[in-house]
Amino acid sequence: MKTFDQYLAIVNEAVDAIKSRHPQVPANLYDPIYYTMALGGKRLRPVLTLMACEAVGGKVSDAIMPAVGLELFHNFTLLHDDVMDRADVRRGEPTVHCRWNDNVAILSGDAMLTMATQHIAHARPDVLPQVLKLFNKTAMEIYEGQQWDMDFESRNDVSISEYMEMIRLKTSVLLGCACKMGALMGGASEHDADALYRMGVNTGLAFQLQDDVLDVWGDPSTFGKATGGDIMNNKKTYLLLSALIEADEDDEAELKRWIADTKARPEDKIPAVRGIYERLNLKEMVGNVIDRYSRKALDDLDNTESLNDEAKRAFANLILKLIKRDR
Amino acid sequence: MKTFDQYLAIVNEAVDAIKSRHPQVPANLYDPIYYTMALGGKRLRPVLTLMACEAVGGKVSDAIMPAVGLELFHNFTLLHDDVMDRADVRRGEPTVHCRWNDNVAILSGDAMLTMATQHIAHARPDVLPQVLKLFNKTAMEIYEGQQWDMDFESRNDVSISEYMEMIRLKTSVLLGCACKMGALMGGASEHDADALYRMGVNTGLAFQLQDDVLDVWGDPSTFGKATGGDIMNNKKTYLLLSALIEADEDDEAELKRWIADTKARPEDKIPAVRGIYERLNLKEMVGNVIDRYSRKALDDLDNTESLNDEAKRAFANLILKLIKRDR
Repeated sequence: MKTFDQYLAIVNEAVDAIKSRHPQVPANLYDPIYYTMALGGKRLRPVLTLMACEAVGGKVSDAIMPAVGLELFHNFTLLHDDVMDRADVRRGEPTVHCRWNDNVAILSGDAMLTMATQHIAHARPDVLPQVLKLFNKTAMEIYEGQQWDMDFESRNDVSISEYMEMIRLKTSVLLGCACKMGALMGGASEHDADALYRMGVNTGLAFQLQDDVLDVWGDPSTFGKATGGDIMNNKKTYLLLSALIEADEDDEAELKRWIADTKARPEDKIPAVRGIYERLNLKEMVGNVIDRYSRKALDDLDNTESLNDEAKRAFANLILKLIKRDR
Repeated sequence: MKTFDQYLAIVNEAVDAIKSRHPQVPANLYDPIYYTMALGGKRLRPVLTLMACEAVGGKVSDAIMPAVGLELFHNFTLLHDDVMDRADVRRGEPTVHCRWNDNVAILSGDAMLTMATQHIAHARPDVLPQVLKLFNKTAMEIYEGQQWDMDFESRNDVSISEYMEMIRLKTSVLLGCACKMGALMGGASEHDADALYRMGVNTGLAFQLQDDVLDVWGDPSTFGKATGGDIMNNKKTYLLLSALIEADEDDEAELKRWIADTKARPEDKIPAVRGIYERLNLKEMVGNVIDRYSRKALDDLDNTESLNDEAKRAFANLILKLIKRDR
């Protein structure tokens, strides 16, 4: 096994090479793709794929193209989500639909999805049917998650279990897919491939809940984006949904006033809502839920049959790093 | 070989079954897909796939799922094109972005592309790598064609060869892909698969030029959409580009006046521009170009090695029917 940074270096090199392996014109189709991929990001998914492949005894060279395919796919979803959410900034730079226009963002996103599939198609022919099936199923689940997320905006009866299912679909299954795909390409048994899938999904759930926590209590200078965005947008996160259940009459009334106040200033609303969350001990409560999913992920890892101690340690360290992160 | 209508019946049954093999919720993700597929259409691409598969000695059952995948793909491109072109009506019904909204159209289109790939993935494992590679390459070419088409709107120096390359990419390669994919799944030699690909592309070029002709001289009651749309939109078709080259000083000046007149009424502009085209004998000129591509397609068909006379006759009849069509 290599270190995280060594896998990351391999991924970054392969991502940087995308442009040289594909056409340059029409520029309005291809430039936005290369622009998006050059913005960087954690590259977590392809790293997980390479790690899982080597952890079960496979070679990086068998997994690198599909790993890059997952990174292309992930960035395609962000590109189209940014159009749908009318988001102006991504990783500190203008989003594609702002820098170009909506049509360019739609079409270059479509091309990124096909380009992702082209990379997935590089899986060895003996595992290609399974790998492709996993990828397509995961993609459908992610669209479902995005649609539920949009549907939830106009609903006032979203339950916590619906929220958990939404984030499972929208963000967690892709981490599970990244792990399982690497395992399949490394020649893992079905048992181990499935255990690593569950490990990825549980890590993803903990990761997303941690994202909700960081939006409220994170330090903007390390988190990379302004905090309080979920509060300002009345986003139905685990925290808001829990608060609406746990709050006494007074806190509930105050929370609902803030939700209804479309003209509230961030400097008033964010600390007020954060204060309600703190009175309800939600930081600790969500922290416990995050710990539960982390433990599940570590149990899944322990359940694998072919991973040696070094491989298990590498994954365990990564899981803990992801979940204890402050950015 | 079966008749066109027999292949069409098989395709229609398989298209109708899509809904029962896929989820129903979230409704805002899946309803637009089933709505789009229920609008019908010529189903030309999947029929070509089934025909090519049987023509080279394969079985319909090996090709039907990927054939439906091509129809899903084709309809996905129409769905996203309609968003980009702000088109309100498709096959006589409201487009998805009008009936729902832009976000629904973007996301359900994405899901249709992945669903298309899921269907393509049903190709037999021994031909899956080739089939998938062909499909993905074709998809990228179609996006390129759509981008060139949008780029041409704001350019005044589009050449006829650029226009031909644009329609080759935007519409013709998918017919080539449909034929070649069927041939590959039917076990054709590379030689025959490539000959059928070229046959499809040349048929597609003739078909698209015939579309340009029908927009100007077609009978709206049989063509299925109002004629003159290209003229009203100053669409840089083969006809307009040829007219700008062939016209004498007076006709050129008149044509440019109509192009610049943003307030022209259809009942004035359409017959006037049609009149210029007729003075320049463009209907005959384009007719000759269409005949040339039809002959090329028939030559490609003759160049196949494994097709028997019945199969060749079936394709030849279809090509002639498509190109002599009045709708």
